[in-house]
Amino acid sequence: MSDNSDCLSVTCQASPNIALIKYWGKRNEELILPDNDSLSITLDLGELHSDTTVSTSSSMTCDTFYFDGIQQTKLSKRMQKVLDEVRRRAKNDQIKFVEIRSHNTFPASSGLASSASAYASLAIALTKLFNLENPQSTAAYLARIGSGSAVRSVYGGFVRWSSEGECLSSCIYPVEHWPELRLIILIFNSSKKPVSSTDAMQRTRETSTLFQARLSTVNDKIEKLIQAIKIKDFNTFAKIVMMDSSQFHAVCMDTYPPVIYLNEQSKHLIDLVHAFNKTDENETMKVAYTFDAGPNPFCFIREEHADEFLSLLKHFYPSNNDNDNVHKQVSNIDGNFSSINLPIMANALERIVLTKIGSGPKII
Amino acid sequence: MSDNSDCLSVTCQASPNIALIKYWGKRNEELILPDNDSLSITLDLGELHSDTTVSTSSSMTCDTFYFDGIQQTKLSKRMQKVLDEVRRRAKNDQIKFVEIRSHNTFPASSGLASSASAYASLAIALTKLFNLENPQSTAAYLARIGSGSAVRSVYGGFVRWSSEGECLSSCIYPVEHWPELRLIILIFNSSKKPVSSTDAMQRTRETSTLFQARLSTVNDKIEKLIQAIKIKDFNTFAKIVMMDSSQFHAVCMDTYPPVIYLNEQSKHLIDLVHAFNKTDENETMKVAYTFDAGPNPFCFIREEHADEFLSLLKHFYPSNNDNDNVHKQVSNIDGNFSSINLPIMANALERIVLTKIGSGPKII
Repeated sequence: MSDNSDCLSVTCQASPNIALIKYWGKRNEELILPDNDSLSITLDLGELHSDTTVSTSSSMTCDTFYFDGIQQTKLSKRMQKVLDEVRRRAKNDQIKFVEIRSHNTFPASSGLASSASAYASLAIALTKLFNLENPQSTAAYLARIGSGSAVRSVYGGFVRWSSEGECLSSCIYPVEHWPELRLIILIFNSSKKPVSSTDAMQRTRETSTLFQARLSTVNDKIEKLIQAIKIKDFNTFAKIVMMDSSQFHAVCMDTYPPVIYLNEQSKHLIDLVHAFNKTDENETMKVAYTFDAGPNPFCFIREEHADEFLSLLKHFYPSNNDNDNVHKQVSNIDGNFSSINLPIMANALERIVLTKIGSGPKII
Repeated sequence: MSDNSDCLSVTCQASPNIALIKYWGKRNEELILPDNDSLSITLDLGELHSDTTVSTSSSMTCDTFYFDGIQQTKLSKRMQKVLDEVRRRAKNDQIKFVEIRSHNTFPASSGLASSASAYASLAIALTKLFNLENPQSTAAYLARIGSGSAVRSVYGGFVRWSSEGECLSSCIYPVEHWPELRLIILIFNSSKKPVSSTDAMQRTRETSTLFQARLSTVNDKIEKLIQAIKIKDFNTFAKIVMMDSSQFHAVCMDTYPPVIYLNEQSKHLIDLVHAFNKTDENETMKVAYTFDAGPNPFCFIREEHADEFLSLLKHFYPSNNDNDNVHKQVSNIDGNFSSINLPIMANALERIVLTKIGSGPKII
């Protein structure tokens, strides 16, 4: 925190999180109370994060918001809601206005929603700036009313967002618990914009005949997944994660009119992962995919299998571009993929992001 | 029936049927007893049908099967099962062997499963040839053990296949009940083979967490659909048909590993139909789609809207081929589709089939 004359300032970094058990459905739109518990991992700060600096001084006459250095004409309703809540909780009545400067280290085309990391970093920075009481739960509350699943980016490691009681989040296992777990994010070439998830989840709630059945399965699934994480049982972990992803996309499909996020590339990757997992003679799972409200897969893998999977990706998604950035990370392991009977899709991949679980937000 | 010396012969024509409420899941594999009731319309014989001739004579020494004039080396297990059941039911013990000659007027690429029309025509022809008792329910039984939903092609009009009691089919309303209903089948360009539906539905039963919830909604949906058909309420008809199609594809998606039949073209058509239905100022639905275990849509429409829909298809799926057969049926109605903000997909369509509800199989 820096303090020039009466100007106070705090900067916080936070990362996106990837849901292992998806959040889909709000029982309260204003407070963003979810219909079901969800579970996620928070990404490492190194590769992808949001940076948010909040400042306040007695000379400010209104709230201002700069995104990537450019002043925005208006604060969004959600950001306004967060600031109103901060002022309600702040003890010092003199403190009135705030300047917010936010920046993402990852482009929109990364397939990652930036709102989780943006609101988590904003919530933590504001909590610190105004010295709010119960800082952890306050930051989680502020992040949640800003952007639902941002509540999960307030912590590092494996994080659960509860749908009961105060509907806050908590760290189930820290990053150190399963250090060999890696994440490979595939960005497919696609210009198609996804359906807004806020609208889509509301439509699912209103029209899906299978939505209640999904809700009734979630808690049991979360308990089983936590147990698998506890004993680092990747086979069970992989199966539950993939099944929850499919169940989530199933209730999207069951929405009227249907919401379809997966595309041909997504389908190909799904088939590829299942075929690749079958190549292990001991039937040990090597990779698990999960898809959010978009076509790009997030793949979980243990470090020991990462090189083989990357060469699989190089084989099935070759790039014709000589200055190819996509596969630069791939070591030249020569995998034998002749048993996998799937078409090769040239130039399907735009980008690969290699990352891992992170330790959570950082005040800098 | 013709009778040369001791040779008896019967020919029957039957059409495919299109499920309005899908059959997905067998509780008995051998007898093909379905998990849920389903409802379909049988197509008109004019456009698409199977032709099956069965013959028997004392000089035959084995069963033989000719498909499109070519003798098959072996009868399929299912065909063998049908013949065994026929011999079990036949009173005349002398009658032993059968020659089957079958032919479809529609290609495999039509997106229509030919097994329903093939087994319905076979079952009816055999029932007649051997003068089996209770011919209607016997033919339905034989068709069902041959190929499940073939039981629905034994009748014309709107047909319900019951999942209880004897699990046979019955005509709910004859073809004359709703004569202005039309069917437009779109065949998209796609070389991809669908996952076998027999395997996929078994996998859904074993792995889908939402399958039971689907089953619990079906009977209520069928009652509402029958009521809509009764009063020719196209709006309700359309909504139920589209929702059941989506629910069916949702449980396929919820299968492990997931089964995904819809492709980019299917998604585009879904969006197009919903956008087109919205263009009516009275919010009257004009078109309903349904998808079986494949990417090609079956569209229901009343005759009065057919020309406008065909010109919509011509607009959004233009063909660059001058000898274009696809859009030859389209009258040059100039629809105003400027309010529909969807991409134009050139050469996406391989074929359009225009047809209607039929009166059922015919002995010729």
